[in-house]
Amino acid sequence: MNEFELIGRLTCSLPTNKSVVVGAGDDCAVLDLGLPDRFLLFKTDAVVEGTHFTAATPPEQIGRKALARCLSDIGAMAGTPNSALITLALPRNFEPALVEKIYAGLGALARKYDVAIVGGETTFNPEKILISVALLGTALRGKCILRSGALAGDAVFVTGELGGSLEGKHLDFEPRLTEARWLADHFSLHAMIDVSDGLAGDLRHILKASKVGAELLATAIPISRSARLASKEESSAKTPLLAALTDGEDFELLFTVAGRDAVPLLDAWKQQFPKLKLSCIGKITAGEGVTIRDKEGVRPLTALGYVHFA
Amino acid sequence: MNEFELIGRLTCSLPTNKSVVVGAGDDCAVLDLGLPDRFLLFKTDAVVEGTHFTAATPPEQIGRKALARCLSDIGAMAGTPNSALITLALPRNFEPALVEKIYAGLGALARKYDVAIVGGETTFNPEKILISVALLGTALRGKCILRSGALAGDAVFVTGELGGSLEGKHLDFEPRLTEARWLADHFSLHAMIDVSDGLAGDLRHILKASKVGAELLATAIPISRSARLASKEESSAKTPLLAALTDGEDFELLFTVAGRDAVPLLDAWKQQFPKLKLSCIGKITAGEGVTIRDKEGVRPLTALGYVHFA
Repeated sequence: MNEFELIGRLTCSLPTNKSVVVGAGDDCAVLDLGLPDRFLLFKTDAVVEGTHFTAATPPEQIGRKALARCLSDIGAMAGTPNSALITLALPRNFEPALVEKIYAGLGALARKYDVAIVGGETTFNPEKILISVALLGTALRGKCILRSGALAGDAVFVTGELGGSLEGKHLDFEPRLTEARWLADHFSLHAMIDVSDGLAGDLRHILKASKVGAELLATAIPISRSARLASKEESSAKTPLLAALTDGEDFELLFTVAGRDAVPLLDAWKQQFPKLKLSCIGKITAGEGVTIRDKEGVRPLTALGYVHFA
Repeated sequence: MNEFELIGRLTCSLPTNKSVVVGAGDDCAVLDLGLPDRFLLFKTDAVVEGTHFTAATPPEQIGRKALARCLSDIGAMAGTPNSALITLALPRNFEPALVEKIYAGLGALARKYDVAIVGGETTFNPEKILISVALLGTALRGKCILRSGALAGDAVFVTGELGGSLEGKHLDFEPRLTEARWLADHFSLHAMIDVSDGLAGDLRHILKASKVGAELLATAIPISRSARLASKEESSAKTPLLAALTDGEDFELLFTVAGRDAVPLLDAWKQQFPKLKLSCIGKITAGEGVTIRDKEGVRPLTALGYVHFA
C-alpha cells in the first residue's frame, strides 16, 4: 500500500454527519451549519522546517507563508476567510523573539484580509519548527466552487505565471482571494483549485474529481521569469515548460468555464486586473488524462519527461 | 520575557474582527457568524510524542486522545462538536498501518459523538509523531459557558476524581460533553473549564478571567485511586491531595454556580449521572488567589508544596 492508496482508504471510511457538504478531497471542507446564505469552509495546513522553509528563512516570512497557504485554499473555493487558530510546535528553549516575528508576519497578512487570530497554542517539537494553521471561512451557497464541476468543452484558465516559485515567490505570494470572488461573482465557474502541487498535478485533481480529461496548449502555458532563468543557469534544470507544469507552490488559480465564456472572461479580466496575467491554457475533453499540443503534435503530457502527479 | 509574558504580549496584539465573541484565552474561541440561535466554537489541540504519549502508546489510543482533548474543550463551553480536521506529522518511512490505527482510534470516538472527520493532511516531521486536531462545534447563544463568569459566593464543583491520570486515564478518559450540556440546560452555570493542567492551575484560569479568588476544602477534593496508590508506592511521590490538585490531564469539568443552586444541583446530578461523582470542593471569594481549608486552618494553596499554575 503506497501513500496515495492509504489516503484513499482512509478517506473512504471517515465518519461523516448531516452537516457535511464536501468532506476530504477538495481545497477546503464545506459544511452546512444552517447559515441562511452561506456554507462554512474549514481548512488546515502545516508548514515544516526543511520541507516548506529552511532554517535561514526569516521568521516573519515563515508565519506569512503558513497563513497564506490556507488563504489560497479558501480562495480556490471563491470563499472569504474569517478566523484562524495557530499551532506553533517549536524546539525547547526557542527564543521568544522568534515567536513574535512569526506572529508579526502572520498577523500582518491576517489584518490585510480581515482574518481574526482567535488563539492556538505553542507546543514543543523536537528539532524542527512546525506551524499548523486552522482556518475558517464562508462561501455563498450558490458560489462555492468545487473541483468536481469541469465539463467537456470547458476552457481551462490559470492566473499569473508558473514555475520557479522556490526562487522566492513561495514566501511572498499573494493569495488570490479577491480575484477568485470576482470571478465567481461575474462568471459561472465550473471547477477551481489553487496550484500548489504544480499545474499538471492540480489539473489532475480537477480531472479526477470531474471525471474528464484535458488538452493543454504548450505555447499558452505562462512560464515565470524564475523558471526561465533557472533553466538557463543550470544545465541539469528542467525545461522552462516542465518547470511551469511541475514545480509547485505557485498558489495561482486554475479554473474552468464554459467555452463560450472564455473570450468575455478574458476581456473583463483585463479591465478588472490589468496587472495580473490570465491565460487560457487549454480545454477540457471527454476522455481521460492530460495531453499537450505542441509543434510535435498532440501527445500525453508524460511524454515531456517526469511529471509529478501528487 | 518568559513564556507566559510572551503569550500575554502576543494575545494582546492579535488581529480581530466583528465576528469574534471570545478570542484567545478561553477553552475555545467563540464566533458569531450569524447563525440565529448558536455561536460557533473553534479549537485546535496538538499531541506530541514524548510529551503527551510515548513511543510505546498504542496508536489507536494516540488518535483517540488527540480528538478527546479537543472534545473536552468543547464540553467545557457546554457545546456540541461538529467536525474535525486532522494533521498527522510523521517521520518519513512511517508504516501505513500506523496511520490506519491512529485514524481507527480517532474515528471510533468521532462516531460516538457524531463528529465528521472532513479532511486534513499527512506531513513529514523529523523524529517524532505530532497530531494536531482542529475542531468546530456550536453552542446555544445563551448557554455558552466561559471562564469569566464566576462570582463571589459561588459554589465550586468538579466532576469525577482527580490525580494520577498518567497511570492510564489520560488515554481513555471520556470527554464530559453530555454532562456539560445537561448542566447548562438545567442550571445557570457561571463559569466552566476542563481540568487539563491540574485542578489548581485550571481554577486559577477561572479566577483570573473572573477577577475573583477561591477557598477550597481539602477534605472535599475527590482524589483518584491512582493518585492514592502512586503516593503509597513511591516515597518520592506527591501526597494524594497534591496529586489531585496538580497532576493534570484529568479532563473533568470544573465549574461554578450560585451558592443557592449547590444542593439542588447535587441532588439532580445524582439522579441523572449516578455513576459519575460530582463534588462541591469550595467557594468563590471576593479576594485574590486560592486558599485551602484543612485541619491546620485556612492557608494559601502554595503552602501545600509545589503547585503548578500554568
